[in-house]
Parts: sequence; structure tokens; C-alpha cells
Amino acid sequence: MAEQEVILFGMCISPFSRRIELALKIKGIQYQYIEEDLSNKSPLLLKYNPVHKKVPVLVHNGKPIAESLVILEYIDETWQNNPILPKDPYSRAIARFWAKFVEEKILPTALKTIAAEGKEQEQIIEQVYQKLNFLENELNGKDFFGGGSIGYLDIVVFFIARAFQVNQEVTQVELISKEKLPAICKWIEKLLKIDVVNECIPPREKHIAFIRAHLEAAKSSSN
Amino acid sequence: MAEQEVILFGMCISPFSRRIELALKIKGIQYQYIEEDLSNKSPLLLKYNPVHKKVPVLVHNGKPIAESLVILEYIDETWQNNPILPKDPYSRAIARFWAKFVEEKILPTALKTIAAEGKEQEQIIEQVYQKLNFLENELNGKDFFGGGSIGYLDIVVFFIARAFQVNQEVTQVELISKEKLPAICKWIEKLLKIDVVNECIPPREKHIAFIRAHLEAAKSSSN
Repeated sequence: MAEQEVILFGMCISPFSRRIELALKIKGIQYQYIEEDLSNKSPLLLKYNPVHKKVPVLVHNGKPIAESLVILEYIDETWQNNPILPKDPYSRAIARFWAKFVEEKILPTALKTIAAEGKEQEQIIEQVYQKLNFLENELNGKDFFGGGSIGYLDIVVFFIARAFQVNQEVTQVELISKEKLPAICKWIEKLLKIDVVNECIPPREKHIAFIRAHLEAAKSSSN
Repeated sequence: MAEQEVILFGMCISPFSRRIELALKIKGIQYQYIEEDLSNKSPLLLKYNPVHKKVPVLVHNGKPIAESLVILEYIDETWQNNPILPKDPYSRAIARFWAKFVEEKILPTALKTIAAEGKEQEQIIEQVYQKLNFLENELNGKDFFGGGSIGYLDIVVFFIARAFQVNQEVTQVELISKEKLPAICKWIEKLLKIDVVNECIPPREKHIAFIRAHLEAAKSSSN
């Protein structure tokens, strides 16, 4: 293969950036990582992702790709060792279906818990649980979503689920509970023991400081 | 190939259902079409898409797949003749990026025009234009988004853009104008002349009656 230049523009706490790092590590791809300050985005990030102006952006031999789910597919198609997506079309469809569900249904509902309080917050937490329960059922009896090893849906869900867990240490909003989602909790524990996953986890203190700052900003803007 | 049973649960006016019909026709796949009454969904639809309870659902040899973008990828991977997605990973990533943009950015903004009025509506129309203009630039100088023939992104965008055009006959909300989006307008005209595309267009009278009924319902629920 010709010489490759792979650059990832990411942000340490972003679960979307973490997905790309894990995929690159699983494939054993050498890459340069550029940490973005989202309050002062670099001209290069704005150049490479003029539509959304967001991380992650993967730049491969000068060509930029944005949107984490799109990047994951690109990585899997470009470097075919250690496949991330399942092989057969039906399993691929199921993995993509749930990834879309996480992005479009679970995440937006979970974000609503930040601004909500009391009874309303309880109702939203219940809604998040109902949605996560679909994933609980998908996972039940399996080691990973993809079966015997880490795959696309594991990568997609893991950093979101892990962020929910760290968030709840600060906010006391429990979205992932051992009682209600035992298969997901076991699966998180299993993933945390895998070196390549662990290398991609944001440093705990930094993550917690980020959530605190984020909550403060959200509170002061709603006052 | 073994005997295939392909069933599509769709709704005549739904641009999402139309996408799947066009893809199946491009591939020359025989299928049974089941029209759903969305005000009285069939037990089979609810069985096959228990998460979203929406059309389209493709059932291939008894296995259901939901979400139109997921179904398009499944069709392209399962029947490899007449490819829909581009061949090289980078072009595939770009097509997927814009498809996601249509679903997540253009459509939700366009839907807001229904409930809005006056100045607010004008601002939303301008926002939709700004977003559509990205697609205008993507298309400029090309026959189709995919290059020389109809592909994935053409299928994804076409029925949405066409629905905007038919909607504006009823609502007078102009989202697709010849002056501002000439490349998109030319491309719609070109697609309308292709037999296989034309076969997938909802009957005009039925489409207009649907929009009228939809608007009436939206108005009476907001009163």
C-alpha cells in the first residue's frame, strides 16, 4: 500500500471522536491526532468540515471525511483487515439500524435530561430506559453486539454508554443502571478490560471537569 | 441464486418508500408491494418494525429491514448488479455524508415551514435554501450526484426534492426555485424523464390530496 497520511481531528471527551480512535487502533492504522478546542476551532477543522464545523474529521491523504458513522464505514472499506462491520448484508443492516437508533433516538432523548427537572426528568429517564432496553435485548446472551469480538455497533454504543455512566457521577441522573440494564453493564465492564478500548477512554478527571463546566454553562444560559 | 421472496411495506406518498421501490426497480428485483394505511397500520408492519412502526420495511426471505437508508445499503450489498453506491470508499463516504445531511438537517428544517408563518416562515425558508445550496454545489456540472448514472444520493434526494415541489403547489411555500437552485431543478427534470423513476412517482392528484389532508390535520391540531 502507498504511503498513507491519516490525521484525526478530535476532541478528547467526544464519544464520536473516541469511536474513530478505537476503529483506527483496531485496524492498527498509524495516525496523527489533533485535539481541537471546540470554543476556538482551528482554521483547518473549519476548512475540512465547513458544513457542520464539528469533530471528528478524518483526513486521509488530504481528503476529509466527517460524521463518525460515515468515517467508521470509510475506515472499514479502506483498510479491510480486522473487519468492523459484520460480513453478511443482513447483520450489517441490523448493526446500521441500531447505530442510527442510538444517534437519532437515544442521544437526543438523553440530552433532554440536562434541562429537565423533577417529574418531567423522571419521565425522560424512563423514555431513555425504554430505548436502551432495545439494545439490552439485542446484547442479551452475546459477548458483543457483533458476536464474538468488538465490532461496529460496539464501537458506536460504547462511548455513549460510558459517557452516560460518567455523567451520572456528576448529575445523579442514572441512565445506565445495573438492575435495569444488566447485559449492557456487564458488556461495558468487559470492554473496559480490553487494552485497545481502555487507551481510548477519556481521562476520568478531565471528563468529570468537562461535564461540570458544561452543566454550569447550561445552567447560566437557562437563567 | 435461491428463490427469493421480497416484500416491501410502503406508503404511496412516502418519499422514503419511493426510494426503496426505485432501488428495487434499478436492480430489476421482483417484489410484492403492500400499501400501508398509516392511520390503521397492519399487524404485519407492527411485527416487522416494532421499534419505529413505520414504512418502509423490506422483508427478504422472512427477514425484515427498516429505515430507508439502511434498506438501500442492504439492497446494494445483496444484489450486486447495477450498483447504487459508488465503488470507491471516498465517494461512498461523500454520498453517505450528504444522505445523512438530507435526513438530519434539510428535512427537519423544511418541516418547520408548515407550522410557521410570516417573517418566521421566511427565515426558515432561507435556512432550507442555505442547506439545499450545499447540494446544488455538489450537483453543479454533473448529470447526477453519482456522476454518469442514477445512484444512491440521487435516490435519497430525489423524492424529497420532488415532494417539496408538489407541496409548494398547495402551500405556496417555495423551497425549490429555478432561480436559486437551477442545477437541482434541471436534475429533477432529467430524472422525471427516466421511465424507471417515473414509475415510482406518486400519482399527482393523490399526492396533492394527501398534502391538503395533512395540512388540515396540522391546522386543526394547532387550533
